[in-house]
Amino acid sequence: MNGLSRPPLSPNESDIPLDTQTSMTFTDSPEPDDCIVLGAGMAGLSAADALRRSGYRVRVLEARDRFGGRLEPGTIAGHPIDLGGMWVSPVQTAVQELIDRFGIRVYEMNLQGRLVGRVGDRRFQVPEEAWDKGLPMLSRLRLGLAASRIRRLMDDIDPERPWASPRAEEYDRETVASWMNRNIRDRTVREVVDFTVKSVFCAESNELSLLFWLFYLKALGGLEVATQGGPGGAQNQLCVGGLHQLATGLAEPLGEALHLSEPAVSVTQTDSGVTVRTAGATYRAKRVICAVPPTLLEHIDFLPKLPTPRQQLLQRQVMGSCIKIWVAWERPFWRNQGYNGMIADAQADFSPVFDAGPPDSDIGLLAGFIEGRAADTWSDQSEEARRDMVLKTLESALGPEARHPIDYVERDWTGERWSRGCYGAFLPPGALTRFGHAIRQPFGRIHWAGTETASVWSGYVEGAIRSGRRAAEEAASQMS
Amino acid sequence: MNGLSRPPLSPNESDIPLDTQTSMTFTDSPEPDDCIVLGAGMAGLSAADALRRSGYRVRVLEARDRFGGRLEPGTIAGHPIDLGGMWVSPVQTAVQELIDRFGIRVYEMNLQGRLVGRVGDRRFQVPEEAWDKGLPMLSRLRLGLAASRIRRLMDDIDPERPWASPRAEEYDRETVASWMNRNIRDRTVREVVDFTVKSVFCAESNELSLLFWLFYLKALGGLEVATQGGPGGAQNQLCVGGLHQLATGLAEPLGEALHLSEPAVSVTQTDSGVTVRTAGATYRAKRVICAVPPTLLEHIDFLPKLPTPRQQLLQRQVMGSCIKIWVAWERPFWRNQGYNGMIADAQADFSPVFDAGPPDSDIGLLAGFIEGRAADTWSDQSEEARRDMVLKTLESALGPEARHPIDYVERDWTGERWSRGCYGAFLPPGALTRFGHAIRQPFGRIHWAGTETASVWSGYVEGAIRSGRRAAEEAASQMS
Repeated sequence: MNGLSRPPLSPNESDIPLDTQTSMTFTDSPEPDDCIVLGAGMAGLSAADALRRSGYRVRVLEARDRFGGRLEPGTIAGHPIDLGGMWVSPVQTAVQELIDRFGIRVYEMNLQGRLVGRVGDRRFQVPEEAWDKGLPMLSRLRLGLAASRIRRLMDDIDPERPWASPRAEEYDRETVASWMNRNIRDRTVREVVDFTVKSVFCAESNELSLLFWLFYLKALGGLEVATQGGPGGAQNQLCVGGLHQLATGLAEPLGEALHLSEPAVSVTQTDSGVTVRTAGATYRAKRVICAVPPTLLEHIDFLPKLPTPRQQLLQRQVMGSCIKIWVAWERPFWRNQGYNGMIADAQADFSPVFDAGPPDSDIGLLAGFIEGRAADTWSDQSEEARRDMVLKTLESALGPEARHPIDYVERDWTGERWSRGCYGAFLPPGALTRFGHAIRQPFGRIHWAGTETASVWSGYVEGAIRSGRRAAEEAASQMS
Repeated sequence: MNGLSRPPLSPNESDIPLDTQTSMTFTDSPEPDDCIVLGAGMAGLSAADALRRSGYRVRVLEARDRFGGRLEPGTIAGHPIDLGGMWVSPVQTAVQELIDRFGIRVYEMNLQGRLVGRVGDRRFQVPEEAWDKGLPMLSRLRLGLAASRIRRLMDDIDPERPWASPRAEEYDRETVASWMNRNIRDRTVREVVDFTVKSVFCAESNELSLLFWLFYLKALGGLEVATQGGPGGAQNQLCVGGLHQLATGLAEPLGEALHLSEPAVSVTQTDSGVTVRTAGATYRAKRVICAVPPTLLEHIDFLPKLPTPRQQLLQRQVMGSCIKIWVAWERPFWRNQGYNGMIADAQADFSPVFDAGPPDSDIGLLAGFIEGRAADTWSDQSEEARRDMVLKTLESALGPEARHPIDYVERDWTGERWSRGCYGAFLPPGALTRFGHAIRQPFGRIHWAGTETASVWSGYVEGAIRSGRRAAEEAASQMS
């Protein structure tokens, strides 16, 4: 890790002067750390890992009683699953590096057979890689034209600085929906784009800034990458045992330096260092890396106060709405019937759905999502009601066998106090041009990580890892 | 107050069963209250006032060490001023009722003389009521046409239920800026509308949902009301001694029932009542009225968790960015030169500016604002730098005498921990149609107040008072 090696200890290193404004006891932390990381999601763990491996003294404070953030282990019918993020892609180099390091086996998601789709009133069954064959001929043509146009819009966007793009102001004053309304006449094509937006952001196309959408797609390599399951697509590989093992691999070597159930309450900077207070303890360090989802930063008191652009940006970063649902059967019965288990139903509340069964077992596993507007309604219903709706959707797509699962597991991310939603935060119009420049800008001794700060694969685990490493390099460069 | 009278005490009234899940001590609050109000801004104080006067036992918990919220007293050169909201209008009936009750004298803001304006490169000096005469003839005409068109868009919007308007989806998928871009060709007219949006919301026209903007204008009576200073306009009257006296009048009778410096940490509902915990105490009541600015609700843990639509709505409610600045001179020197002290400069960072001098003194007082994008930059500068910029703007508009004030006072609302901005919260596209229906929807024993929940004069003190009274009626109707 270039530029990250810790310089030799200086004689007075453990002798940073105390905060002069407040008297404190240091029973918890007699020796100041080099860096305190707030948040033990993939961004925070990656930052801590990079610093630790370069010889820095690092401490991680996590609010939850577990690490991993939006990666979370679960089980269904005795099999390990991911209740949060689960897919990786061979083109995600940071993810692949960790997969190699921890010796995790990956396998390609099952795509053999036909997906079951619906757009408008039209139901269809087609192979995943040719899903647009399900559309009427004319709509297929128009979808192709719309995709070309979207690609052209992305052309001059620099994901490092989308706010500086030549037409940034123009793109940032409208939503994806208002742009579509003027530029895509075909109702079927609009429905497809709406479904895509919902599936990627767990939000609606009338909420996202067009500029933010273009930036996000550009940062991961294009519209096709975001939506596809084949090689090169974002939904390509799954991990045997679960993607959450990446978090375990990073967290374990931290040992006692990782504090669970200890949310930061305040972060105070002075000329000599940073003081982080939790409900029961006080810690000091030279630098802080903040890897907490943006919405949650309102919980923390920063002294001095955060710069106004940062504070206003936080007010505009909105988490998507998502409930992830797993259903298990004795066998993946759909495979015998020529289905690949994928359901892409633009009209259903439970969609998309994917075959996430492991390669080393005969069990049948589907994982699917209630996203965006649909999550508003379903989140406050009973689990029984959700389960019933889910099984009806599965039955109508895959047949009556779907009605008899052996297990059902769900995670409502909208109700997660320490995430406030999933998969990530989106930006409404006007925010990226006005505040985007502040997104990675350090504030004194505080550096910002989190997938939302990434300029490559922003919103994904890949972006989280990269953001943590970038923040670690920033912090390290100031500790030399 | 209809429907608010407290019913006779029932025998077991002070005998509400304890929360069965948690053991608690009640040293602070041996007797449960009828209602606990969170927030002692005008909404919370109005709710508490209505309940108290109807005989209910009420307690108000305020985070700040003062009451009044976005109304705040200050002084400049020994004269009382408002650091927050200051204007009222004769058409604001709830405000006028309190003004009468507390015997506060009002006076009309000085509008005698010419305002100094600029749109684009064009500078002008015109009377306030005919400010559009400063525009080129053709732009004046087009502005009139644009105003008619905006009025027509408002026609079918019901401020009680803007999300149910016939064209709600259409208006809510775009921003004011994207609508303007298609419907207003004249760059001067667009600049005027941008300036208007900035002045009313302290936000930019590319951030606000068109539907939200139309709702807000309709809720106060139209575009002209929002922008004008004459009778019928929102910026018409000032209070001798300051508008913040309304808060004092409501707060004083509460006595020890008003707790300052005591932010709520958690709100727990059971079948039998609500428990509110602060850092050092626990209180119980039958009902809670939450009159805290939406952004700040992230600080409070609700158990059970808030419904998903409420939680997601909160993530989308963004506070405007505003720094209010007062400058005092020995005399209102501009009046002798034929100026009314008003500066409406669409190009300046410090604008609009108003003559807020009291009628009973010879002192010259101007109050003005750094709003929206301009506040992002200026908020993190030194007071000296801001003061210098402000005085330069005043000098270039009103002449060299402006350079020699006797006092200067500012309040940066973007930095206020317990407001997070001013004047109020706005909504980006997609939020009102998706979550608007939830804005006043009680959650069990919790009722929602705050100017953002008002359907008349939402965003103003008038809306805050009305929202508090409405929430009080709701709560009272459940306590009979």
